[in-house]
Amino acid sequence: MHLVVPAGGTGGARFVRGLLSALEALPGPHRVTVVANTGDDVTMWGLRVCPDLDTLTYTLGGAVSEEQGWGRQGETYVVRDELAAYGVLPTWFALGDHDLGTHLTRTSMLAGGATLSEATALVAGRWGLPARGVELLPMTDEPVETHVRVRDADGERLVHFQEYWVGLRAAPEVVEVVAVGAEASRPAPGVLEAVASADAVLLPPSNPVVSIGTVLQVPGVRAALEATAAPVVGISPLVGGAVVRGMADKLLPSLGVAVDAGSVARHYGPALLDGWLVDTVDADLVPGVVEAGIPCRAVPLLMTDVPATAAIAREALELAGVL
Amino acid sequence: MHLVVPAGGTGGARFVRGLLSALEALPGPHRVTVVANTGDDVTMWGLRVCPDLDTLTYTLGGAVSEEQGWGRQGETYVVRDELAAYGVLPTWFALGDHDLGTHLTRTSMLAGGATLSEATALVAGRWGLPARGVELLPMTDEPVETHVRVRDADGERLVHFQEYWVGLRAAPEVVEVVAVGAEASRPAPGVLEAVASADAVLLPPSNPVVSIGTVLQVPGVRAALEATAAPVVGISPLVGGAVVRGMADKLLPSLGVAVDAGSVARHYGPALLDGWLVDTVDADLVPGVVEAGIPCRAVPLLMTDVPATAAIAREALELAGVL
Repeated sequence: MHLVVPAGGTGGARFVRGLLSALEALPGPHRVTVVANTGDDVTMWGLRVCPDLDTLTYTLGGAVSEEQGWGRQGETYVVRDELAAYGVLPTWFALGDHDLGTHLTRTSMLAGGATLSEATALVAGRWGLPARGVELLPMTDEPVETHVRVRDADGERLVHFQEYWVGLRAAPEVVEVVAVGAEASRPAPGVLEAVASADAVLLPPSNPVVSIGTVLQVPGVRAALEATAAPVVGISPLVGGAVVRGMADKLLPSLGVAVDAGSVARHYGPALLDGWLVDTVDADLVPGVVEAGIPCRAVPLLMTDVPATAAIAREALELAGVL
Repeated sequence: MHLVVPAGGTGGARFVRGLLSALEALPGPHRVTVVANTGDDVTMWGLRVCPDLDTLTYTLGGAVSEEQGWGRQGETYVVRDELAAYGVLPTWFALGDHDLGTHLTRTSMLAGGATLSEATALVAGRWGLPARGVELLPMTDEPVETHVRVRDADGERLVHFQEYWVGLRAAPEVVEVVAVGAEASRPAPGVLEAVASADAVLLPPSNPVVSIGTVLQVPGVRAALEATAAPVVGISPLVGGAVVRGMADKLLPSLGVAVDAGSVARHYGPALLDGWLVDTVDADLVPGVVEAGIPCRAVPLLMTDVPATAAIAREALELAGVL
């Protein structure tokens, strides 16, 4: 089976890890193409940082900090502390020493003319992703950076998503989310081909606004997902009207979308979705989703560990009809 | 007293530390302007690295690794090991994690339009150099990079000084030393003014070819040293016909200079030097230096510790006639 998973960071990475575990129990071979959101990317300390690509790589490569859900396990912060002592570079977006090796390597490759796809493949290669049957692609090789128009006591202003999320801790009201550069971007090599030839596409419980929503803004990607013969099945990132992690609950209202599992399904819409999983606590939302033309089931959706996540992935594959 | 010290890295830094100790025993106030060689500078991992400036800063700021004579004490190499695991960036020039904070800060300042002088002042400020009465200036704000034309089994080629010294461990024969960019460079702000207003200029036992020799190649610097009313007194980097550390013995022949304390004095010449100190083991070389028109004394020159180095600095100040 060939599965395609458009994904953000922590939630997407944990879902793919569970999916790989589910696939191991099925007669193979299987392969998974992950199309990562790059809208969270930021240039920090002069280095190109790709949080979602790295969280996916570290998680699937067994190097992620399980407590955080991002970054490297056993991380140290010697460089960050030194920068703080100098006081020139901002340290609110702390990059760890191990992590810096990734950013320095990627930045150097990009400066030398490599594409983000090429740098991503090099990094993923070190962490053994190809050997696990995973191909990790950025959604695009062009720079796209999600910005958020926020409103607080200081007035209204456009800030980088990382400044909103990490720097301002998602405190200000969100007026608008803008994927700067998305309109002029093109899908990275392999993205449209993977969607077209997939046996199924799974949307993990990543942020529907700034993770999967951003991937969908790369021209051609939504159309490819709507056109593919493969079933597209999504997993709700909202459980009981709240986010399991992240800040989707604060961003959905800016799109006029209510903060519940059914509203997110209708936001994606029946042209995109061929199936939708909600948590058992949201079973009452199933009829409304089905009524909108999207097959829907209620199953346990908390990714508490790898086996629980594998069970979710298996439910998605079943709903997709590929088991 | 205002003293000016053109200097390279380890030897220069240790000498200045001894000089500060000697000055503390004299009625003050005193100040020392150090004009650092920047010809060893190199762009590594995309970062601007200034080895001599940093060795001077760390040594005078009490943060240097005493064992190495450069780099930070208690240094760690997490980032370097990560880069080695990726295998894209070269790791023969290892930058430590603590040290990286300096390079990231400086590189970011330069990218933002600051001069090397401004970045140097910021770094030196953190390490308390102004409070110790030390002003640290780069010889120039323009990029100058010393290259070495080497000859070995692979033939003749021009390599960066760091590749010759660190990468090739000074093994190949040296045909020529070229300070690329020196001709078009200008002395950094304050350099010529410091030389003109100094009470004495001391040349520490730094490399006469690639440290002090490079500073002298910045247009206007040698002329200012020859024209200043201040006495210029140098300390031989060679003791008993050998280098105490470094590779001056391998570079001097490329200039046609013999590897002994007297020949180095004559290479600098009487127009530049108003005094020269050789080690007691080289006492037999004193008459030849005096004959060349350079007052000369033989005193113990091994900088074994700070008191021994302070004694050398005191001898230099005495020979300069400023005590």
